[in-house]
Amino acid sequence: MTKLFMFEKPAGMKDTLPELYQLKKQVKDAISGEIARWGYAPIETPTLEYYETVGTVSAIQDQQLFKLLDQEGNTLVLRPDMTAPIARIAASTLQSANRPLRLTYDAPLFRSQQREGGKPAEFEQIGVELIGDRSNSADGEVIALMMASLEKAGLSNYQIAIGHIGFVNSFLEEILGNETRADRFRRHLYEKNYVGFRKEAEQLPLSSIDKRRLTGLLKLKGDAAVLDHAHALVESAKAKQALVQIEQLMEVLGAYELIGKVSIDLNLVMHMSYYTGTVFEAYSEGLGFPLGSGGRYDELLSKFNHPESATGFGLRLDRLSEALGKTKESIISDVCIIFSNERRKEAMEKAQRLRKNDRTVVIQDLAGVADVDAYSSQFTEVIYLIGSNGNGRSSA
Amino acid sequence: MTKLFMFEKPAGMKDTLPELYQLKKQVKDAISGEIARWGYAPIETPTLEYYETVGTVSAIQDQQLFKLLDQEGNTLVLRPDMTAPIARIAASTLQSANRPLRLTYDAPLFRSQQREGGKPAEFEQIGVELIGDRSNSADGEVIALMMASLEKAGLSNYQIAIGHIGFVNSFLEEILGNETRADRFRRHLYEKNYVGFRKEAEQLPLSSIDKRRLTGLLKLKGDAAVLDHAHALVESAKAKQALVQIEQLMEVLGAYELIGKVSIDLNLVMHMSYYTGTVFEAYSEGLGFPLGSGGRYDELLSKFNHPESATGFGLRLDRLSEALGKTKESIISDVCIIFSNERRKEAMEKAQRLRKNDRTVVIQDLAGVADVDAYSSQFTEVIYLIGSNGNGRSSA
Repeated sequence: MTKLFMFEKPAGMKDTLPELYQLKKQVKDAISGEIARWGYAPIETPTLEYYETVGTVSAIQDQQLFKLLDQEGNTLVLRPDMTAPIARIAASTLQSANRPLRLTYDAPLFRSQQREGGKPAEFEQIGVELIGDRSNSADGEVIALMMASLEKAGLSNYQIAIGHIGFVNSFLEEILGNETRADRFRRHLYEKNYVGFRKEAEQLPLSSIDKRRLTGLLKLKGDAAVLDHAHALVESAKAKQALVQIEQLMEVLGAYELIGKVSIDLNLVMHMSYYTGTVFEAYSEGLGFPLGSGGRYDELLSKFNHPESATGFGLRLDRLSEALGKTKESIISDVCIIFSNERRKEAMEKAQRLRKNDRTVVIQDLAGVADVDAYSSQFTEVIYLIGSNGNGRSSA
Repeated sequence: MTKLFMFEKPAGMKDTLPELYQLKKQVKDAISGEIARWGYAPIETPTLEYYETVGTVSAIQDQQLFKLLDQEGNTLVLRPDMTAPIARIAASTLQSANRPLRLTYDAPLFRSQQREGGKPAEFEQIGVELIGDRSNSADGEVIALMMASLEKAGLSNYQIAIGHIGFVNSFLEEILGNETRADRFRRHLYEKNYVGFRKEAEQLPLSSIDKRRLTGLLKLKGDAAVLDHAHALVESAKAKQALVQIEQLMEVLGAYELIGKVSIDLNLVMHMSYYTGTVFEAYSEGLGFPLGSGGRYDELLSKFNHPESATGFGLRLDRLSEALGKTKESIISDVCIIFSNERRKEAMEKAQRLRKNDRTVVIQDLAGVADVDAYSSQFTEVIYLIGSNGNGRSSA
C-alpha cells in the first residue's frame, strides 16, 4: 500500500504521545478534582449535534464548523463548544432540576482551521457552567474556581483580566449611535488592534470631545481606579450599571482574597457572541494566547425556550500543559521482569505482588524480544527470571 | 425560536448525566490504573482521520463510517476504532521505539447506525495494543490484563471465550475449498446463526463425512477437551498449528491462574476483519452483547509499510457500566453553605477548610436562589450563614 496520506493526519489534528498525555492527565485530574469539591456535577454530551440545534447557537463562525450529513440528510456538526450543548440539556432533561445548577465537563471541541493557520482543530477543554443565579456571587464563584483550578494545576504565574461586554456595548452605542459602526470597533477590540481602533476613531465625523471619549476607552485597563475613570467617561444608565456590577464583583473577589492576580480590562471583547455581562480571561506570562476564558450569558438559554441567567468558564488543557512545560515525573515503567518459559509462574507472582504495592511492572517473555539489551535499557529496574535452576540476575 | 430539532440529538447520540458519568469514571479509573501498572503507556489520537489512511484499514463497513470533507476536498472519517490509528503511530512516530511496544488508550469511537438500530453511534472504549511480540505470552498477557481490568472494575460474573480465526479459516478452506463459500459460513458464525449454518451445510454437494465434519465445528465449544475433538476433525498443518497455539495459550493462562473463567469457542468469529490468530470475547451473564473483545492482528501493521505482529483488546465502557448497574455512592454534594452578603467571607473560609479535607462544598449566595427549601433539600448537610449577628443555623 502506498497512499498519499499514509501517515498523515487532517489539518490541525494531533497525536498525543505518552509524555504529554501524562502531563495533560495530571493537569486534568487536579482541575476536575477541585471543580468536584466545589460541588459541580460532571456531564458528557455527544460529539455530534444537529447544526440547527447547537451549531447555530454556538456563535462559532460557520466556516469554522466541521459539518456532515446524517443518513436522513440533516446537517450535523462536531461540537464547537460545550456551552450550547449544556444549555440544551439544562433547558430539556434538567429543566426541573433545582437552580442554581452547577455542571462541569471535560471534552474535545472542534473548530476547522485554514491549513496555514497552524492552530489545533481539536482541543480539550475543561470547564463549568453555573445556571440560574444572576447574582455577582455567581460571577465571582466561577472566576474564583477558575483561579483555584489553575493553582491546583500547578500554575502560579497567571493573571486574570475582567471586563464587561455590556459596558463596551453601551459605551459604543452611546458615542457611535449605530450598530454597524459599533461592530467595527468591537472587532478592533477583539483583535486587540488598537492602532486600527484609533485610526478609525480619527476618521469618524465626531466631535473632538467624543473622539477623545472613544479613544479614552483604550486606557480603561488596570486596577480599581479604572472604574472611576470609566464612570467619568460614560453617561448612560446601562453603562453605569455595568460598572457597578464590576465594583461588586471586585468586592466578592476581595472576600476570596484573590485581588492580587486580578486586573480590570474594559477593552476585553470575546469571540463568543453570546456573552452579555462580565467577561474574563486567564493569561500566563510569555504565552501569546489565553489559557481560558468565560463570562455571563443571560440570553443563551432563551434560545432553548428556557430563559435564565448563566455564567461559566472554559480552560484549554492543551495550552495549560504548554504553560506548565514538561512534566518532571518520568513516564518510564518502574520495573521490567524478563522471564523464560520455565519461570513464567514465578514472574507472574512477582509482578502481581509489586503491582499490589502500586508499582508499574512489565512482564516480558524473553522469546518475545528481539534486542534484550536495548529493550531493557528503558526501565529503571530489570529483573531476569531465566533458566530452570534459579540463576536469575537482577540489574538496577 | 422554534425548530424541528430544538432539543434533539442525532441518531445514536446520547447525553451522559452526572450519575452515569460518575459510575463510568469509577470504572474507567479502575481499569486505566490497572493497565498503567502493567506498564502500558497512554496515547491519544485525533477524532478525525483521513479516510484513505485509517478509514479503509479499520475494517468497519463503509456505511458505518461517519464521513465528511475537509477544505481541500479530502474525505475524513470520525475514528471507528483505535487499532488502526495506533498502528499508524507505531509505524511512523514510534517506529524506532523499542519492541515490544505496550500502548493504551481511552477514547470515543464512532459508528453510524441505522435509525431503527438503537445502538449507540458514539461509545467510549478503553483498551491496549501490544505490538512486536508474536509469542503466546503476548496473547496471554492481553487476555490476563483484560480479566484483571474487569476484576478491578468490580465485575466478577464474566466469562472469556477464546477462539482462533486462523483455525476457522483453515478448517473452512480444507472442507469447502473456496473463499466465497467459506465467507458465507464465517458470516453465519459471526451472526451466531447456527441454524443457517446447518441448513447451508446440508444443501452443499459435500460427502456425508465432510458434512458431518463441517457441522462438527459447531460442537467445538467448552473446556480443554474441545482441542482433542478439534484435532480429530482437521487435517491441514495450518489448522493443527492453530490448535497448538491455543493449547500453549491455555498453559500461559494457567500460570496466571485464570483458567476458571476461560472457555474455548472455536466458533468465535469477530467482525474486525484484521484479526489473524487468537481472538477472544468477554461476556457477562444476562447481557446480550460482549463487554469487550480482542485478538491477534499480524497483518495490519504491514498496511502501514511496517510489518510486525500485534495483539490487543478493547473494553466497552458503556456496556461495562450497564453490567455493573447503578453506583451505590451518592453523587449528591456533601455540604451546602448558604450565606448572605454580610457573612460571605466566613462562608468562603469555611468552604475552603472543608474542601481541604476533600469534602464537596457548594457555597451559595442566598440572593441567587429562588426556592431555598427545594434547593437545600438535595444536600446531606446545609449550613446557613445568614445575617450579621451570628444567627447562623445548621441543619443536617
